[in-house]
Amino acid sequence: MNTNPRVEATRARILNAALDAFVLDGYTGASTDVIAATAAASKQTVYKYFGDKEGLFRALISDVVDRVHDSIVRLDIDAYDDGEAVVRALARLLSASVLDRRVQRFRRLVIAEAARFPDIGRAYYEGAFELTLGHMADLLASASERGWLHVDDPRIAANHLAGLLLWIPSNRIMMTGRFDAITEAEVESGLESGVRVFLAAYRD
Amino acid sequence: MNTNPRVEATRARILNAALDAFVLDGYTGASTDVIAATAAASKQTVYKYFGDKEGLFRALISDVVDRVHDSIVRLDIDAYDDGEAVVRALARLLSASVLDRRVQRFRRLVIAEAARFPDIGRAYYEGAFELTLGHMADLLASASERGWLHVDDPRIAANHLAGLLLWIPSNRIMMTGRFDAITEAEVESGLESGVRVFLAAYRD
Repeated sequence: MNTNPRVEATRARILNAALDAFVLDGYTGASTDVIAATAAASKQTVYKYFGDKEGLFRALISDVVDRVHDSIVRLDIDAYDDGEAVVRALARLLSASVLDRRVQRFRRLVIAEAARFPDIGRAYYEGAFELTLGHMADLLASASERGWLHVDDPRIAANHLAGLLLWIPSNRIMMTGRFDAITEAEVESGLESGVRVFLAAYRD
Repeated sequence: MNTNPRVEATRARILNAALDAFVLDGYTGASTDVIAATAAASKQTVYKYFGDKEGLFRALISDVVDRVHDSIVRLDIDAYDDGEAVVRALARLLSASVLDRRVQRFRRLVIAEAARFPDIGRAYYEGAFELTLGHMADLLASASERGWLHVDDPRIAANHLAGLLLWIPSNRIMMTGRFDAITEAEVESGLESGVRVFLAAYRD
């Protein structure tokens, strides 16, 4: 990725405008003219950075992936002393990143368009959703190797942790269309109870 | 509900046509003319049975609710001997009904439209999603009263069971746009492992 701050700022503006346009007008309806104008960029710049509309969509996937994964990938198991601490840290990162407003908007977009554009949905599902689960699974496997957890199938365990933490907030945000549908206190108590259930099943 | 078979058949045809039209053209774009024509019904009949487009949408919610809830509400705890049997039966009913093709299509529709029509999303969230959780919570509370489970907060426990069972299949179907994205064998093994985790946390 280009690290020139001006280029980065322009890229970010274009991606924001693209997400807005996709969410508002659908993938088909979104116009690269409008995206360029909203981002105060030339159409030429949009094409230079992203190719075409599909390139914009793929760049948005990378952007969402970065948000969700970077923090999880950087979670260093050697910084923890036991399984509970690792699971709690992982739960907190997963919850914060998946409930990020931009990630939630993007998920809604993917779900809305998946029937018409199966390739888009599959690209997101494999490139973001499954990838996160893979990172989580690796971490749970490491904790299991240290004897901190008993995880036979790390991928299924990762699914279980995600489901315990995210089923309610994600559905409530998706279905009500409100990003403030979940309070901080609800996220906190959801973390506590989800981690407790996970540990009951996977710690002994 | 009217139990005249002809009326019921016409109602069902109109609801099917409405769901197709909403999914294809969005809530705003869907035309009651097209819905009536697809259902081989007169527009007058559509209006007589459902009022307007919003009435059609609300009738679809009821239809989805019936599919998901009827089976769960009818689950008779006295037919079981222990917590594991109850949880397994509940898990099977929940999984089958939520993964029903029509329910999944309707969920996608709600998610796609929720940002533009928050009322629609809220009506579905409260009238279907939360209602199911309530029924599940009642059943888990009954099992807990019999000493078969240890459930302090039945509603949270219901959320946990749903998340453990549905996070993966529901997301995979929603995001890939494919109703065959989950195999029977995957549903079965997902049930087994989800029930196991739930019981580890809530049976002792």
